[in-house]
Parts: sequence; structure tokens; C-alpha cells
Amino acid sequence: MAGVFVMEPEEVQSLRKRSGLTTLQLLASLVPQAKSKARPPVSDYCVGAAGLGASGRIFFGVNLEFLGLPLSQSVHAEQFLVANAALHGESSITHIAVSTTPCGHCRQFFQEIRSAPEISILVTGDGYDAARAEPDPDAFRRIALFLPHRFAPCDLLQESVPLLLENRNNRLVLVSGDDDSSADRDLIDSALRAANRSHAPYSDCPSGLALRAKDGKVFAGSYIESAAHNPSLHAAQAALVAFVAGGGGGYEEIERAVLVEREGGMVAQEGVVRLVLGSVAPGCSFSVVHCRPQISVDGDGDALNHN
Amino acid sequence: MAGVFVMEPEEVQSLRKRSGLTTLQLLASLVPQAKSKARPPVSDYCVGAAGLGASGRIFFGVNLEFLGLPLSQSVHAEQFLVANAALHGESSITHIAVSTTPCGHCRQFFQEIRSAPEISILVTGDGYDAARAEPDPDAFRRIALFLPHRFAPCDLLQESVPLLLENRNNRLVLVSGDDDSSADRDLIDSALRAANRSHAPYSDCPSGLALRAKDGKVFAGSYIESAAHNPSLHAAQAALVAFVAGGGGGYEEIERAVLVEREGGMVAQEGVVRLVLGSVAPGCSFSVVHCRPQISVDGDGDALNHN
Repeated sequence: MAGVFVMEPEEVQSLRKRSGLTTLQLLASLVPQAKSKARPPVSDYCVGAAGLGASGRIFFGVNLEFLGLPLSQSVHAEQFLVANAALHGESSITHIAVSTTPCGHCRQFFQEIRSAPEISILVTGDGYDAARAEPDPDAFRRIALFLPHRFAPCDLLQESVPLLLENRNNRLVLVSGDDDSSADRDLIDSALRAANRSHAPYSDCPSGLALRAKDGKVFAGSYIESAAHNPSLHAAQAALVAFVAGGGGGYEEIERAVLVEREGGMVAQEGVVRLVLGSVAPGCSFSVVHCRPQISVDGDGDALNHN
Repeated sequence: MAGVFVMEPEEVQSLRKRSGLTTLQLLASLVPQAKSKARPPVSDYCVGAAGLGASGRIFFGVNLEFLGLPLSQSVHAEQFLVANAALHGESSITHIAVSTTPCGHCRQFFQEIRSAPEISILVTGDGYDAARAEPDPDAFRRIALFLPHRFAPCDLLQESVPLLLENRNNRLVLVSGDDDSSADRDLIDSALRAANRSHAPYSDCPSGLALRAKDGKVFAGSYIESAAHNPSLHAAQAALVAFVAGGGGGYEEIERAVLVEREGGMVAQEGVVRLVLGSVAPGCSFSVVHCRPQISVDGDGDALNHN
């Protein structure tokens, strides 16, 4: 299932050999395949993207739109691609091919990756034929050329703070007692793991949302913040990316959702998750479990807050 | 009250004479004054902007953040400025001075103005001293340089479709019977007028939200769409801009809200308005009144849908 939205290095090499394409030509040639998986019921405007990870894997992204909600709830193909790479523990993205020129919102979202200015982008348009095109190293342009004079994480954060795709453990623990008998045990565990990987350095309110489909499969997404706030991918958007990327079918198959987020945080996902799930999966039941930064006690008995 | 966020041409001229500054120097010198009105309780990161309209008026913008909601509900100073200009019927903006470099989200939002690539921007930073700076025509840079290879309304719309700040009448009428005795009469009228000015060419679901404060004052905002969806300013954000720009105090003073939006539209504001008002003004009661495009009958008896 995951194979639809991630291609392993072996498959990339095998496809290269069979097609005679360079890796970057192959990347561009895969855009239409990604595009065909888009879910834009409002605009019918499909966008597909393919990104090359430092690991040699190729990640795909598509745009998602949701009926009956504001347009600001949409997920762009570039956001999907980046969230998909994060979900799979990819450490960096070097090249992206996308069917439409990235909008300003996505150019801003990319900035959460430390190497963003150096990521090279190819806008394929609809008529691009990778097999016929001559290899052109200049066809890809660096993101720095798409967002000059940028506003970036470095304007707000110390350099030591991990950015998106970098190793992170938010060291969150559940506030309520650990109830192993809960029917939601698997969802709570998945949502907590997702919250611990969540990129939320601006609000310090990481969160994760886990969804269970009717067939029992669980999909979890980590909230991703943007230095510019609005391009952030909230917990429901992130979990729906995980659902689609993981091979989920219609959203109405989602029957149970658990959000793990900080108690009394300045930023809360609960309301927007309820809004989005209530619209796309009205039959889904939803609970919130609160977490807090882990407090450990050092040798002298002093409490240390690791977050 | 409105004077805090709009400066009339006479006042601009008077200030120029008194200060000896050029209009563009004056614009830059007003940024700190705008910045002091920002409301960012999450980040404490204040942004102020001042924009020169074709009418000679100066419009101000500040960033708004809302506690307990996702960061994507924030309103950026540049969005505030543009929505404020639209609220006052300004036809165009030629120059903007802003305290921080515009993020990608705002660069995209600007594209809804037809002349966006030609709007000139000055990033003042915190240390800019307009009174001491030599006049420098090159200090302002065109938005085209901030968002090259843009995704824009012209990628989706016919050229004849009005863009933001252009004359528009969405010709919406209320679906339910006209009840002149309603205690909400003034709010419904204001919200309908706002819906008729709403820029929603991508979803064809315009809307308007009117708010009444405890002192009886009414503030209404028009939903503004972005070609790139996510930078759209939803109805609650637009109405809160009107509230702040119109001299409103704490959001808890808002006691009644009426949303006018299309019945059964693909895009709906109701849920997000309930979410935002429930957080910033929990004592506020809220109703939705539906509207539809006006159907008129021409000389031959054929129904003509004007929308």
C-alpha cells in the first residue's frame, strides 16, 4: 500500500535501467502518476509532486480538498510530499518535480527544512515528456529563486533547534493514568508517538492524531508548524495525509480518532480536528488525550523539564 | 475610531508638510505606530504595515493571533492591510511598508490584487528611521521580485472576472423570507452587504459575517479567497479585521454574530466561524442565514442567473 506514495531505492534503480532515464528525468516522469491520485472535489484542479530523498527514495504528494470546509483546510501536493517524507523518517529532500508552480504558501512551508533554499524544483506543467526531453541540469531551479528575501525559521529559532526532517523527540508523556485495557490503546500509542515527532518549535505545542479505519488499520500524523504560522499542517491534515499515503480509501472508512496534545496549550488542535473529521468522516468518534513534557528527577532530586 | 487604521489624504498631506518627509518616507515612518496595535498573544511577535492607496489614503495592518486555536487561524499584517483597504472601497494599493519581510503566504495573498506584481514593498525592519534616511527610490522593491514564477488568479480565472479591490456585486439574496421584525435585522443586512462584496471567484461561495459589540456597534467583514486556497481570509478572520480596524476593543465585547453564506455550498464558513468565535468570544451567540444568487426573469420569461 505504502508503495503508491513511496518508491524504494531498488525500485528507483530498476525503473531507471528499464527506461534509460536519469534519476531526475525519472522523477519528472512520475508526476502524472502522482497527479492521478489527487483528491480535489472543490476545484477539480489536480496537482501531483514527486520528491527525491537523500536516502534515494522517491516520495509522492497530491493535493487534498475537503467539501463543506473553508479552502484554508486544503493540503497542497508539496505539503503532502514533505509530510509523507517526514512520516517515513527521510532526512532530507534534494529535488522535487511538480505539475504546477508552487504557490507562496508552499514555498513558505518548505522553509521548515533546513536545506530548503538548496532544494531544486522542476515545474513540469501538463505537457512535460521526460522520456523525450534532453537531460537539462538547468531545468531544476533552487527554491531560493522562488522565495528570495525569505522569512525563515532562522529568523525565530536558535540554530540548535531541530527543524523538520531532523531527529527529534519531544519527550511527551500522557497526563492521565496509563490504562492498558483501553480499547483505544493502539490509537493512543500511535498518536503519542506522532506527537513526539511533531515539529512545533514556535508554539511548543506538539500534537499527533491517530485514525482507525473500519478494517482495523491505524494511520497517524504529526502536526507540523511553519515559522509563518498559516502554512502549518494541523493534526487532522497531517493524519489525512498519513491515511491517503498509507493506502486509505474513502474518508468515511475512518471510524475512530484519538488526538494527543498538550494540556492547556496556547495552541490547540481539538476544535479544528473535530471540524474537519465531522465534515469528511461524520461517523467517526473522536477523543482527546492530553500530554505534558516529561519531568525527570536528576541525582540531586531536582526536577528537570526536558522539553 | 476608523482613523487609527485609515489616514485620509488631507491628513497625509498635513503630516508631510509638518515633517518634511516625502509620502513614501512618511509611509515608512508610520510602521512602528501600526506595529504597536498588533495582537499576537501566541508569539508576541508584532508586525505592522502601512499601505498607500490610489486614493491617497494610507491603510494600516497588524497581525492577529488567537489563543487556543491552530496557528493557521492567524491574520498577517499584510492580509489585515489588504482586507482593510477592501473594506474602505479602495481601488488599488501602490506601495507598502512593513516591519518584517512578507512570508510566502502573504506574497501569495497579494496576488488577488490585479496590480500585485507592481506593488512596491519596503521592509523597514525595527531600526528604520525614515526621518534620517535619504530619499531612496530603490528602497521599495516590486512584489514580482518577492514571488517570481508566481501562481496567480490568471492561472484559473478569465480576465473579465473582478479581482480583489475591483467593483463587484455578487447579487445574493436571502433564502428565507425577509423578516423586518428580527432583532438581527441590522446584522443580517450588514452581513448580506459584506457577502455581496466578498471575493470568492474560485468556489463561487461568497459570504459575510457581521458582529455586534456590547455597545451596539456593528462590524462586518467579507470573505476573501486566494487562488492558492490556503491563504484565503475566512469570514471570521475578515470580520475580526473589521472589528479591530473599526476601533473594537477586547474580542469578549462581541455579543452577537450573523453569518450570511450560500445554502449547500461546496465551501462553508459556518464551522470555522463557530470555532473561532467560540474561542475568542465565548459569550457570543451565533446564527447563520443562507443566501442564493438572485434569479431574475428577462423579457422572454427566461430565468437568468446573474451569479
